[in-house]
Amino acid sequence: MDYKQRQRVLVSSLAEHKIHLLLITHLPNIRYLCGFTGSAGALLFGGSEPVFFTDGRYTAQAKDEVQGARVAIEAKSPLVAVAAWLKKSRRTGALGIEGDHLTVAAGERLRSDLPKGLRVRAVSGVVERQRMVKDAAEIERIRRAVHLGSSLFLPAVRNMRPGVPESQVAAKLEYAARRAGAEAMAFTTIVAGGVRSALPHGHASAAPLPSQGFVVLDFGVILCGYCSDMTRTVCVGRPTGQQRAWYAAVLEAQLAGIASVRPEATAGDVDEATRKVLKKNKLSKWFTHSTGHGVGLEIHETPRLAAGQGEVLKPGMVITIEPGIYVPGQGGIRIEDMVVVTETGCEILTTGTKELIAI
Amino acid sequence: MDYKQRQRVLVSSLAEHKIHLLLITHLPNIRYLCGFTGSAGALLFGGSEPVFFTDGRYTAQAKDEVQGARVAIEAKSPLVAVAAWLKKSRRTGALGIEGDHLTVAAGERLRSDLPKGLRVRAVSGVVERQRMVKDAAEIERIRRAVHLGSSLFLPAVRNMRPGVPESQVAAKLEYAARRAGAEAMAFTTIVAGGVRSALPHGHASAAPLPSQGFVVLDFGVILCGYCSDMTRTVCVGRPTGQQRAWYAAVLEAQLAGIASVRPEATAGDVDEATRKVLKKNKLSKWFTHSTGHGVGLEIHETPRLAAGQGEVLKPGMVITIEPGIYVPGQGGIRIEDMVVVTETGCEILTTGTKELIAI
Repeated sequence: MDYKQRQRVLVSSLAEHKIHLLLITHLPNIRYLCGFTGSAGALLFGGSEPVFFTDGRYTAQAKDEVQGARVAIEAKSPLVAVAAWLKKSRRTGALGIEGDHLTVAAGERLRSDLPKGLRVRAVSGVVERQRMVKDAAEIERIRRAVHLGSSLFLPAVRNMRPGVPESQVAAKLEYAARRAGAEAMAFTTIVAGGVRSALPHGHASAAPLPSQGFVVLDFGVILCGYCSDMTRTVCVGRPTGQQRAWYAAVLEAQLAGIASVRPEATAGDVDEATRKVLKKNKLSKWFTHSTGHGVGLEIHETPRLAAGQGEVLKPGMVITIEPGIYVPGQGGIRIEDMVVVTETGCEILTTGTKELIAI
Repeated sequence: MDYKQRQRVLVSSLAEHKIHLLLITHLPNIRYLCGFTGSAGALLFGGSEPVFFTDGRYTAQAKDEVQGARVAIEAKSPLVAVAAWLKKSRRTGALGIEGDHLTVAAGERLRSDLPKGLRVRAVSGVVERQRMVKDAAEIERIRRAVHLGSSLFLPAVRNMRPGVPESQVAAKLEYAARRAGAEAMAFTTIVAGGVRSALPHGHASAAPLPSQGFVVLDFGVILCGYCSDMTRTVCVGRPTGQQRAWYAAVLEAQLAGIASVRPEATAGDVDEATRKVLKKNKLSKWFTHSTGHGVGLEIHETPRLAAGQGEVLKPGMVITIEPGIYVPGQGGIRIEDMVVVTETGCEILTTGTKELIAI
């Protein structure tokens, strides 16, 4: 990972945000900018070199991991240490903080600890916007995470039959993920069968799989820090004509979404492409969420692929395309792939069939 | 769960915090106060009745779960909906917000959306302090979570032998937890062997267990929303004399900590009790963290059992007692139980031997 390059890009953007210093406290942003993977720290930009503040528990880990920044091990909490450092260095001007991550209480404490000449300015999404476009090393890691994630689908299908609790399907899938080397699951695994498939966020419950109906599986792993995200819907028992028609419509919408991904398209354009197909099939009122989101060090990143989102797609962005329909009392279907935007369109990262599997 | 009683206690404390209304946005606090377990919502106190704001994804779930509050399903985000509601209701005075949870950006947006007569006042730990003392229904749930958690230890030991990757031990333990009905793990499972046992936060890695040395296992489950937390340290191979002596010292410290728990003792007293034993054994410089913490809906709750903490223990508090030593380059030991404070002392919830197991 070329941390120094990332740091250079960030520092060159400070003036645009009308700040002289920028304090990074969101852990995925810290990891992105200097490689530290621990759970306590703060990274300060705008001095002669970046300074990373952490505490004694992380002495060895910070020495191992942090690149491109001076490491300051402090007995005090990172924010208190930052304020003391700023006082000592007699810095003046505007200190940017991550307004979407720092709490009101931490912000107030920091404000009261700062020297007179420094004012606090909350900024939003500065590092997140930089993280939207993945570099080659990140795409390689994401590819490996997605590959591992994709490999879990068919074995999970083999564990599914009427009466098996959703939680057991999830447990076996997660166990397989761990054995294959996943550091953790990227989010709570969804296994939602029968009428529960109509819940867009139906975490695996103790409910048994039905004797007939859809089962939505939505799962992802973390590998080398990067997330995968994938959804497939299978049918227990022989699908009815209506179930086949619904499934075909969602798949058509998903493929239309993928086909619409190219540089210069907006996030809203992709959303419109999937929604249009479901509208044509008179199903769009059951499509109650957005079409997708960015994925990387976090499972939900910008851009958000939703109606009216003007964010322009660029090569290197990694996004999900995941339209779905949820018919209360009947069932739901969602199909999700991760894709990387290329110079001419996109490459689908997720492998595994999207034909309707009946079990 | 007696949500109405919890709400009454909270509302009766508003004046003490110099606020007329209180907006709860921290999800575990929302769950504690009205039973909602979803991932988007805000709960407003101080009107004629509490109002719970959420969005259309949670219509059915809110109707099912929320008790003692009126449910408002809104197209806007919960905070925008709250501001609109306050404008319409022409409320004036001080609106308390949870300063430790609301972000600076959300706080600023809320402030700018509020009607003129309302001022925002950040408060800290109001619900968390109420949650410190668990009621009977909570202790019953915690007991079941701890029982499930404790049952995982000996089977995990049977999976351990030299050369087995830490991650495999963790994977099997987590699979067993899921099969036994756990909703999720309460935190990233720690399996840290050999020199890695000297890392207080050594998440299970791909490293193989050593042929001789300590292995720290720290794990917990979530059951019915409540967390368990338990640590045991075993020795691969025959322990050396020094390893036996270190283990005996940490166990003695842990038992001294448990013996010191009683109503009217402070959190700091319990920390002092464990630290004193390690000091006597000339090991206190390797005890680099605090003695314990509260556990409930969250894995880390108040009180914090650390030097100088004046919080007075009360019957119904559920805390961990977990001294440890970490000798760089050699190894580490931690032993942790959960206990509930009783009228006369405490009851140990965690089961499972604390004798040194050699495998």
